[in-house]
Amino acid sequence: MSASTVVKVQQPLVPVLAVVGPGLIGGSFAAALRSQGEVGRVLGVGRNTASLARAQACGLIDGVATLQQAAEQADLIFLAMPVGATQAILAQLLPHLKPDTIVTDAGSTKENVVQAARLALGDRIGQFIPGHPIAGSEATGPEAAQATLYQGRTVVLTPLAENSVADRTRLTHIWERCGAKVLTMDAQTHDTVLASVSHVPHFLSSVYMWQVATAQDSDLRMTLAGSGFRDFTRIAAGSAEVWRDIFSTNRAAVLSELQHVKAALAQAEQALASGDDNELQDFLERAALARRFWGSRSGL
Amino acid sequence: MSASTVVKVQQPLVPVLAVVGPGLIGGSFAAALRSQGEVGRVLGVGRNTASLARAQACGLIDGVATLQQAAEQADLIFLAMPVGATQAILAQLLPHLKPDTIVTDAGSTKENVVQAARLALGDRIGQFIPGHPIAGSEATGPEAAQATLYQGRTVVLTPLAENSVADRTRLTHIWERCGAKVLTMDAQTHDTVLASVSHVPHFLSSVYMWQVATAQDSDLRMTLAGSGFRDFTRIAAGSAEVWRDIFSTNRAAVLSELQHVKAALAQAEQALASGDDNELQDFLERAALARRFWGSRSGL
Repeated sequence: MSASTVVKVQQPLVPVLAVVGPGLIGGSFAAALRSQGEVGRVLGVGRNTASLARAQACGLIDGVATLQQAAEQADLIFLAMPVGATQAILAQLLPHLKPDTIVTDAGSTKENVVQAARLALGDRIGQFIPGHPIAGSEATGPEAAQATLYQGRTVVLTPLAENSVADRTRLTHIWERCGAKVLTMDAQTHDTVLASVSHVPHFLSSVYMWQVATAQDSDLRMTLAGSGFRDFTRIAAGSAEVWRDIFSTNRAAVLSELQHVKAALAQAEQALASGDDNELQDFLERAALARRFWGSRSGL
Repeated sequence: MSASTVVKVQQPLVPVLAVVGPGLIGGSFAAALRSQGEVGRVLGVGRNTASLARAQACGLIDGVATLQQAAEQADLIFLAMPVGATQAILAQLLPHLKPDTIVTDAGSTKENVVQAARLALGDRIGQFIPGHPIAGSEATGPEAAQATLYQGRTVVLTPLAENSVADRTRLTHIWERCGAKVLTMDAQTHDTVLASVSHVPHFLSSVYMWQVATAQDSDLRMTLAGSGFRDFTRIAAGSAEVWRDIFSTNRAAVLSELQHVKAALAQAEQALASGDDNELQDFLERAALARRFWGSRSGL
């Protein structure tokens, strides 16, 4: 038995992981890999020192690092801060980036992230594999992180032509060790679909919450709000900064999808206004059946 | 010690309860009173015999009754079927209704229910106290019923001038024994506020769900839908029949409130389209703060 075999078997998939923004998403990634014994040391990078200290107290990261230190030491760098910061952070990583390091991200939009990455990394773009784990919660910060967050959840990768097959395979394997199912598609498809199933609901929920909160009788409204209101508005509690970046980086797709939703709303409103109760029930029935079907197969 | 005192102490608040529609709402009411020892016998009334059999199997009702039998025997009649049936059911109860029986309901709209009750009951209208427990779930049917459903939840009563103070006090006390907090207001205020915090969210959630389900690439959309989608659309799974009645009986208030939401949407959309990220973040921040504040004080 050669020594190298022993070392290989015992070595974790990620000897040194750097997480930029070790909050819910980044912290859960570190926790999932750690729970599987697939990470050696975890470095936390961020501008919020209080949050970094809490991440370390929670055991999510082993130490705090600068972007330069992260680039010099990490085998995998996971970007989990608001997407608007992607270009600036990659530009700071670039001069110190080891040649074999994979950089990936968790951004909710991908076309803009790819564009930012190309601008920042130039001919080192092959080291960046764009990703988006479809998981999260209205909770934020390192305290909300959990090793099981990605269990059974979908992670979308939108690989670039410049990514090596070996790196793509390795990153896929890393995500699978976190319990996730990996789907691959192009960035544009990702952004269009996510505009529909994630960004537009968040926009509508926030608009609605804002409208209720600014009504003259908002106190009474809030008192009579029940579990339907609770569920419908839960996402509106999410980080304003994160969502501002999502909306502004996926502006065209969100605006386009909003038009479709408004057209559907106009149709349903017309059924309600006209007193056509059959049409009203028909539309409610189709929505209910579709939602129940989704619920039964999504596992969520 | 007189015999009558002993009997009074041991007698439940509701010797015979009749529940018209012993599903989630009606069944939970019966279960809550039973768990407190505040009900003697529970009669179940409904058109769905399979559902009634399941309600009896679950122990929610002691037996099945016709409307006539319910009117002849019950001390309290609780209407928990879709609101559209209110007038017809009250008209069938009327000829057999004992003079001291209280009839109340759980309908999500109140002006229309009061109108229906006046038409059906005429000068016996004083026996009807309109009510609306702000509790529920997307689950339906007797299997979903639970004795704790009303614990800590708000029940709105919209009493009529014809209701006796004694009956109002008795019904309030019955709800409080179910663990609920009772609020009293006029029917119009109830309907306006509920249009905002319950009916409009359901309408938007259903419209959205319908739009996603009928998109050409709905399969891919459903695959990438996560927990935000899950929460935002949960209410769309509710009973189409129940919600058709709610919308058609509160049509004007829902349509009016939809106009306000659409105006807010147009404003937010304008901020997004114009690229004014400060305004975008400001609106998202206000919505998030309002939602977090509501969450912290609602107990939901």
